[in-house]
Parts: sequence; structure tokens; C-alpha cells
Amino acid sequence: MATATAPKIVFYTNHGCPYAHRADITLRELDLPYEEVLIDLDSPRPQWYLDINPRGLVPAMKFTLPGSVDQEQIITESGVVAEFLCDAFPSHLLPATTSPADALTRARIAFFHQTWTDKVSPAQMAILRAATEEERDAKSKETVQILKKEIEPLLSDAAPFFGGSAELTFAEVMCAPFVMRLLAMAEDGELVPQALKTEMEKLPNVGRWTKAILGHEKATRVFEKEKFNEAVKSKLDKIRGVKM
Amino acid sequence: MATATAPKIVFYTNHGCPYAHRADITLRELDLPYEEVLIDLDSPRPQWYLDINPRGLVPAMKFTLPGSVDQEQIITESGVVAEFLCDAFPSHLLPATTSPADALTRARIAFFHQTWTDKVSPAQMAILRAATEEERDAKSKETVQILKKEIEPLLSDAAPFFGGSAELTFAEVMCAPFVMRLLAMAEDGELVPQALKTEMEKLPNVGRWTKAILGHEKATRVFEKEKFNEAVKSKLDKIRGVKM
Repeated sequence: MATATAPKIVFYTNHGCPYAHRADITLRELDLPYEEVLIDLDSPRPQWYLDINPRGLVPAMKFTLPGSVDQEQIITESGVVAEFLCDAFPSHLLPATTSPADALTRARIAFFHQTWTDKVSPAQMAILRAATEEERDAKSKETVQILKKEIEPLLSDAAPFFGGSAELTFAEVMCAPFVMRLLAMAEDGELVPQALKTEMEKLPNVGRWTKAILGHEKATRVFEKEKFNEAVKSKLDKIRGVKM
Repeated sequence: MATATAPKIVFYTNHGCPYAHRADITLRELDLPYEEVLIDLDSPRPQWYLDINPRGLVPAMKFTLPGSVDQEQIITESGVVAEFLCDAFPSHLLPATTSPADALTRARIAFFHQTWTDKVSPAQMAILRAATEEERDAKSKETVQILKKEIEPLLSDAAPFFGGSAELTFAEVMCAPFVMRLLAMAEDGELVPQALKTEMEKLPNVGRWTKAILGHEKATRVFEKEKFNEAVKSKLDKIRGVKM
């Protein structure tokens, strides 16, 4: 972004949060300048932050276009923030809506990340909620089956990213933060069976795709896996109470 | 749409399904020609339909651009189908991604329908799942509070539709099918307390907005409220088993 036309962006985030991570990847991929404000998610949110995002969640973004200082906009919810940035600054991440073919590419990407959210994420939560090791193993196997049935076919032309792209797309923006966390937990082995990682790597398309994500500097930049695993372990009772 | 440039659309739907209803409204608003195929959701799906949509759900769409008969595309999932149509055929429903201001309008609409889905829909399901009349009344009051807190402020400039629009927008495409069904159940009174309808009408913005939706011929076209209420009553045991 040339400085003269750059928007003013204040990005409220937390490096442990997968949702905020979606917006982090987008900002880095688009090479947009921004001011980062870290929000502590372990203490009650201060009033100044609730004034920005009444839900108290991250990410949130203050966005001002040059020449419209009086028109500061607040945008919240990770998918909304990330898609807004992709739409406002067209790039390799997501095509603009300029033709039915581009609309179709957008639809394929939307179907993909919705499938991850609707099918894979609940399966992953079921592993963490398992009360016994036996149940944990069963839920882990179910997750691999879901990845095989729902995700593997959608990555048949990944090269290495979604839809034949050599660069990250909005599909990875939405899913990569969750891919990284699932694999980190499986690597640790205490939260998710290590077999899940081995089995994921055996799925040809999913395996190649996850490897490409883990090797992408901008996608992985803020993620610290040991810290994440420790945080999940200390919150496990809370997670086990979550209905999906 | 001029016939010469019209795409070939086969629309697989069921008039009782709120999700399919989203695509129905979009097709009608865009005035696109299409062939409608009704799918019976009360019997096991035939193999020919599972070949089109392996999930067996509606809506699904076969879409072919003129001059590309060999490139028949299948699109599924209601939000994806509806947004694809809006993007492929730009209209009053959703602005194209032509500027940051248009991207912002899209973000505002996305935040709105996501809020309905994440906040209002689970509250509505909680009313239907209530085991006693007392619990049903309590959950109904909670739903009104959620509408007041989450939806009412987002409709402050509705005129009568989202964001000051005189015509339907993608916000109504996504939410109107659920608005209609919630009000129909409250009108009947057996499934949802009638007080919910009265209280919704008292919220100035929500009340005006829902009235505009109910008065819109294309939005309401396929919805038969008595039939819907009877169908929900006969499926109530199943609904009560659904976790949200």
C-alpha cells in the first residue's frame, strides 16, 4: 500500500485467539499498515474496549479511509473483518465480484470454509470434550473421517492453496488458524491423540495443504504452539462444559 | 434478464424450508428465469438427488452460463447459493466489491445476518425445546431481549429495509425466512407465546422492519404459515432433541 492512499487501521487482537488470527493473516497478506492493540482475554474487558466492541471479543478494527477522518468505522467479527479487508483491497486472496466466474470462485471458497466451520470444528471440540481416553480416540478417528469425506475432495486442485492458487486465499485465511491449532494439539498428544496428525498427513490433499500452511511465514507468524497448548490445558474444564 | 444472456438455472427446493427460501427470494428479486424441482424432505432422498447434493439438503442449484453448456456448476448451502447469485448478477440486493465504501456496506450486511444466526436463531430454538409452559415463556422473553439488544440498534436506519434501502437487501434475503416463521409460530400461539409477536411489534425498528418484510410479495411468496406451523408441531419431539 502506498502511504498516501493507505487507510488508518487500528487492530484489536490477541495472539492466542484463532479468530483474531484470521484478521492478522489478512492484514499481513495485504501488506496494510496498522497499529496493533493487544487485548487481554484473561481479565474482564475494560470499558474503553467494550465501547469499541460491546461483545468484548477480538478481533475488532477501527478503520478510517484517507480524507474521511470524521468517518471512523468499527468492524467486528473475524469473518466479517477479514472479508471486508479482502473486498476493500482486492488481491490474490479473494476475487472481486466482477463476473459470474469470479462469483463462482467466491462461492467455492465460502463453501469450503463453511464446511470446515460446520463439520470439522465441532468434531475437534468433541475430542477436547471427551471424558475418557477411549472416547478421545474414537472422536479423533471420527475427525479424520470427516476430514477425509468433507475436506479432502475440496482440495483436489490445491496447488498448494485452495483452488489451484500458489498464494494464500480467503479459504486459508478462514481455516489456517484452526488447522495450526488442531495439529499443535495433536503434536503435543495430551489434548488430541498424536494419531490424528499422522492420519491427517496420510490424506494426500489435506496433508499437502496443511504442510503448505505450516510453512507459510505470514500465516504462522503470531502462533506460538507450546503457549497455545498450555492455555488449552488450563482451560480444559471450561471447554468440556461447552455444548456444540 | 434478457433471454439471450440468461444463465440456465435448475433450482432444487422445498417450500417449507427456510434455508431454501433464501435462494427463492434471491431468484425472484433478481428476476432470473429458472426451473424449479421440488425435493420431498419427508422421505429418504433418492440417489439422483444425492448425486447432485451428497448432503441431501435444499437448496441446491445447477447453474450454466450461456455458451458453456459443458460447464454445469452445482452450488449448495443456502447462504452460498444466495450470495453467489447476488455477486454474479449485481443489483440492489448487495453492492459489488468496487470500493472500500461498498465493502463496508457488505460487511454491515454480513454482520447483521450473522448476528441473527448466532444470537436470535438459538434463542428461537430454545423456545421450541422448552419442556414446560413456564420455561417457554421465559425463553420467549429472552428472545425479545436479544432482539432488543442485538437487532434493534442495527435497524436504526432501515427504510424500511436494511441500511436505508427502499428495496430488499441481502440482509433480508438471509433473515426474512426466519422472521416469517418466528412470527407465524407466535401468531398460532401453541409453539411460541403470542406475547413474543406483540413485544416484537413494540420494538420500533424491529416492528417496522418485520411489517415491511411481511408485506413484501416476493419475500413471502412461497411461505404458507398454517402448513408450516402444523409441520413444526408434528416434528416437535425431534426439535426438542436438537442441541444448539
